[in-house]
Amino acid sequence: MTLNGGVKTLEGMTATLGVAEISDLTGFAEELADLSGKTILPHFRETILVHNKLGDHGFDPVTEADREAERVIRSRIKLRYPAHGVMGEEHGHERGISPFTWIVDPIDGTRAFMCGMAQWGTLIALNDGQRPILGVLDQPFMRERWVASNGHTRFHRAHGETQTLKTRRCENLKDAVLSTTSPVGYFDAAEQRVFWDLSARARLTRFGGDCYAYGLLAMGFIDLIVEAALQPWDIQALIPIVENAGGIVTTWAGGPAQDGGRVVACGDPKLHAAVLEVLAGER
Amino acid sequence: MTLNGGVKTLEGMTATLGVAEISDLTGFAEELADLSGKTILPHFRETILVHNKLGDHGFDPVTEADREAERVIRSRIKLRYPAHGVMGEEHGHERGISPFTWIVDPIDGTRAFMCGMAQWGTLIALNDGQRPILGVLDQPFMRERWVASNGHTRFHRAHGETQTLKTRRCENLKDAVLSTTSPVGYFDAAEQRVFWDLSARARLTRFGGDCYAYGLLAMGFIDLIVEAALQPWDIQALIPIVENAGGIVTTWAGGPAQDGGRVVACGDPKLHAAVLEVLAGER
Repeated sequence: MTLNGGVKTLEGMTATLGVAEISDLTGFAEELADLSGKTILPHFRETILVHNKLGDHGFDPVTEADREAERVIRSRIKLRYPAHGVMGEEHGHERGISPFTWIVDPIDGTRAFMCGMAQWGTLIALNDGQRPILGVLDQPFMRERWVASNGHTRFHRAHGETQTLKTRRCENLKDAVLSTTSPVGYFDAAEQRVFWDLSARARLTRFGGDCYAYGLLAMGFIDLIVEAALQPWDIQALIPIVENAGGIVTTWAGGPAQDGGRVVACGDPKLHAAVLEVLAGER
Repeated sequence: MTLNGGVKTLEGMTATLGVAEISDLTGFAEELADLSGKTILPHFRETILVHNKLGDHGFDPVTEADREAERVIRSRIKLRYPAHGVMGEEHGHERGISPFTWIVDPIDGTRAFMCGMAQWGTLIALNDGQRPILGVLDQPFMRERWVASNGHTRFHRAHGETQTLKTRRCENLKDAVLSTTSPVGYFDAAEQRVFWDLSARARLTRFGGDCYAYGLLAMGFIDLIVEAALQPWDIQALIPIVENAGGIVTTWAGGPAQDGGRVVACGDPKLHAAVLEVLAGER
């Protein structure tokens, strides 16, 4: 995805951002997560009206909480960084006059949310026009937050504990803990065959992870995530979270994952290479 | 399951237990959950050695935490109620001289636990020789607890909030939120066909719930859980939790679910009747 195709000096502008500037932007991303959490939490485990955006064509629940939080996030960004663009699921892509675009999804994992499960999360990324340079995954109900920028991924727990994350070494698929949100709904028939083949070769498969699984991969408890039909806002915040912890996120074909689609994330780059071979053999 | 086939006066003994006695036993069950949580929590998200009980025949991870917590629970029961029996996954079935048997599983959802996900729970039931008369589902990491006895299911949150639970009305399968832990691993080929047929007719299907999903069903966020290959300790604590909140738990054939096996839980008894018809039609 070229977020700002018309802007020429993307690399130059990225290069001018120092550690301190990225830290400021990261602090702002955390402010956005705070705001979002305050907006959403009163609605979690509340009896809510669920809108069906896709009508008869499929089921994609969106809660008032999701829409409201995205409005709150957007207005705060406009106030603080009026030149920046914003892209989100609920209110579309507003281009800015700078190459920077915030990619937000206040409730990633709306199905988990609807079921009262805490695997949903708030995703906030800042893309410099080329790639996401910082990412936040926030779980306000569990009071857990992953923050990635400046080469580190940090995990914050409710009671103030902070930890710098490192993925787990796991070279072989037979030893790998594989995660995906659901084997149906997101995969077409051919993708399902590929997924079940991988699953049969892996040590164990765990379903229902949503964005939270990427946080656990960065933490070293999951080795491999395979998904399809992702949107840019489903994955951009998670790329720096996984990669700054030592992992790798690409498409199934090995390209950049920031546009979404078919995505594979690994804690161990050697496992990633092996998985791409399996995926290539299947096509 | 006839836990104490040789004891004749089971019904009489059950009948003699008053509300106050059941409350005392429930308080004791909560003490056991406290103890278990203290034992397990230091091991959650720790790098742990996973034993493979089934050797090459399958994957059933058991952590030291699980074994240690079951030992702690058993010794506390022996001290307080030496006449009672205890049944658990790790250390077998020790029969008592009374008809009462504690059915315990300190970590139900070992795969979730291994992945760093909080869907695991501690399950504690007291069976009077005929049925589970009280049940506790404890999630010590999230500090959430469901307690069912004397006709009520109560939910306790970390910060002291307590709520009496009521399942949600949902008569029709097409409106139902369906949950199961995994479509593979626990179902044989015929059971998988039945499951996918139900899933196709339901409003949405959510995976990865483990015992936690039964708590959310009691809370009114999930309508239907379909599982197979359950053990008695996987389900006994959850039966009063669901039923005291207005739901129903049976086998796929409509019989008592306390022996485990193929289990169906519904928040709405009308939905349960409809689901049993589908299940019967499939056989």
